[in-house]
Amino acid sequence: MPDMKVRELGEFGLIERLNEMIPRGRGRPTAARERLIIGIGDDAAAWYGDTSIQLATVDSLIQDVHFSLNTASWEEVGWKSLAVNVSDIAAMGGLPGYALISLGLPGDTEVEDVIALYRGMIDLAGEYEVDIIGGNTVSAPQVVINVTVLGSTGSKDGQILTRSAARPGDLIAVTGTLGAAAAGVEILGKGLTCEPGATASLRKACLHPRPRVAEGRLLVEQGVKTAIDISDGLIADLNHICQESRVGARVEVDRVPISPAVKECFPDRALELALSGGEDYELLFTAAADNIDRVRMAASCPITVIGEIASEGVNETVLVDSHGNPVSLPGTGWDHYNAARNQK
Amino acid sequence: MPDMKVRELGEFGLIERLNEMIPRGRGRPTAARERLIIGIGDDAAAWYGDTSIQLATVDSLIQDVHFSLNTASWEEVGWKSLAVNVSDIAAMGGLPGYALISLGLPGDTEVEDVIALYRGMIDLAGEYEVDIIGGNTVSAPQVVINVTVLGSTGSKDGQILTRSAARPGDLIAVTGTLGAAAAGVEILGKGLTCEPGATASLRKACLHPRPRVAEGRLLVEQGVKTAIDISDGLIADLNHICQESRVGARVEVDRVPISPAVKECFPDRALELALSGGEDYELLFTAAADNIDRVRMAASCPITVIGEIASEGVNETVLVDSHGNPVSLPGTGWDHYNAARNQK
Repeated sequence: MPDMKVRELGEFGLIERLNEMIPRGRGRPTAARERLIIGIGDDAAAWYGDTSIQLATVDSLIQDVHFSLNTASWEEVGWKSLAVNVSDIAAMGGLPGYALISLGLPGDTEVEDVIALYRGMIDLAGEYEVDIIGGNTVSAPQVVINVTVLGSTGSKDGQILTRSAARPGDLIAVTGTLGAAAAGVEILGKGLTCEPGATASLRKACLHPRPRVAEGRLLVEQGVKTAIDISDGLIADLNHICQESRVGARVEVDRVPISPAVKECFPDRALELALSGGEDYELLFTAAADNIDRVRMAASCPITVIGEIASEGVNETVLVDSHGNPVSLPGTGWDHYNAARNQK
Repeated sequence: MPDMKVRELGEFGLIERLNEMIPRGRGRPTAARERLIIGIGDDAAAWYGDTSIQLATVDSLIQDVHFSLNTASWEEVGWKSLAVNVSDIAAMGGLPGYALISLGLPGDTEVEDVIALYRGMIDLAGEYEVDIIGGNTVSAPQVVINVTVLGSTGSKDGQILTRSAARPGDLIAVTGTLGAAAAGVEILGKGLTCEPGATASLRKACLHPRPRVAEGRLLVEQGVKTAIDISDGLIADLNHICQESRVGARVEVDRVPISPAVKECFPDRALELALSGGEDYELLFTAAADNIDRVRMAASCPITVIGEIASEGVNETVLVDSHGNPVSLPGTGWDHYNAARNQK
């Protein structure tokens, strides 16, 4: 790809290209390679441990790309940077166990600020029973937070949730409600205000996400096999499932559970934010109706069916109204945004 | 620590401070916590798996802090970024198994350059039988490379190499020769030249380090219990062992094995570079004379005894001549540098 820039190829295209480079099945198979279940391309890597399936995920958060210290406290940045990785383990149906933290920090960073950052991480680690077992710090021109989380499933023969197991006829469901994190980003970024309670709730949704670990475990227990966490946005993440499962998806837009605070503060853009806004860290999953009913009975959060998996329209999500007729999202920007997402 | 900057506290002080924050023994002990052997403070974290000890390490390399694309190729940066993490696993006596890569890249990075970076990683992964199983890319103002490597030891009851097991009377030994990587950094950074063969050898030492995985395994097999890889410099890393083991160290400077290319290109500063130059990624270890003899018999690289562990002078390294008299290093800058290192 001579003269092509990373920006032009996009994140997903680049990962795919790099993934193709990794030799598989060549050379002497190592013990590690023989145990591998999933490498690059799902929420976390997975391999057979001796008595359970092991999981690992990594993510980097860069100052002024993924967070701004003008709108978030150090503690909130700490919470979120660990939360997004724990969410990847949740999306595999696993339990997080250990975390390793690597911090890049400018030399003139206040030590108290770094302590606050760590406090946010330790708060999340305490609530989710994660042990921070490794860490280092390096000098960097801006704050760089890299987090690795290791997790596992209950047993070696246990199931994990992947992006590649969706089958035509599966229903599509989500935990919780959508759009609040993206609305919070808008409010923080543009300094908007709304009704105080709603404003606080949107702010919290984007700065203090709560990974759905218990729900991920529940999905596995109830026989669900396909899930992803909503980090890029409902449609974008559903497209990841479609691509990895080689199926299509149909979403009935009227059924999408929109956060009440989003409806209140962004009445004209609520559906757009719920469909395309990312970082809600809810779980999006597909399964037969029976399994989803059992999940709903046992879950302590809303479980909403929003559509179904189809054999036609492979690799993409079609939006339909309650009569099954295709709709395009009202409001400017949606189609362009969706197209950009798909090409990334 | 109000108003203290990260620069003033230093890397090691900051890690210590953050490590103290992590709650231990509080709350309900999790399965993960009960299995933990070593958290923050060694070359890698270690915990009991079901049939072997598991190891994990993480490190970040930041453009123009840890590498410069003016003096190193993308492929060399890729090799080195994985090598330094594999070296941490080697320093625990483990075998590396899996690697997860998180790349921060400016949008205008050439895709071909990222491919070259990955090729360097894949080359090292192939030679050391590591599988790259996870990866993501994010947007960043400069290149940020974060690598996590997971490894294990042969058996659950097996030994690992730690920084905290040195005992008075142990001899101190190193693999290979020292100083070449730091000399290479000088040559690259200042655009110096020397005899072509020596120049090439120094350049290779700093851009293409070879982690001592086989030697780490050998140390464990021969009953060695204490080791560290030389990333910060011989004296600085020996001080890490002294601090973690609560002992002192005495190094006979005439016995330190200096790289021949360093002697040739930097005759006046060869000893300084060997003692204080970092990034050689040789193993520094301590053990009884018998164990070291057995290591030497089996090793395919030089094994050199350079001093001994003492009960006096806790937490620090004393340099002595062949008569046992204390010496200070000739040449300017050493004492200052050493002091700065100690305070970091």
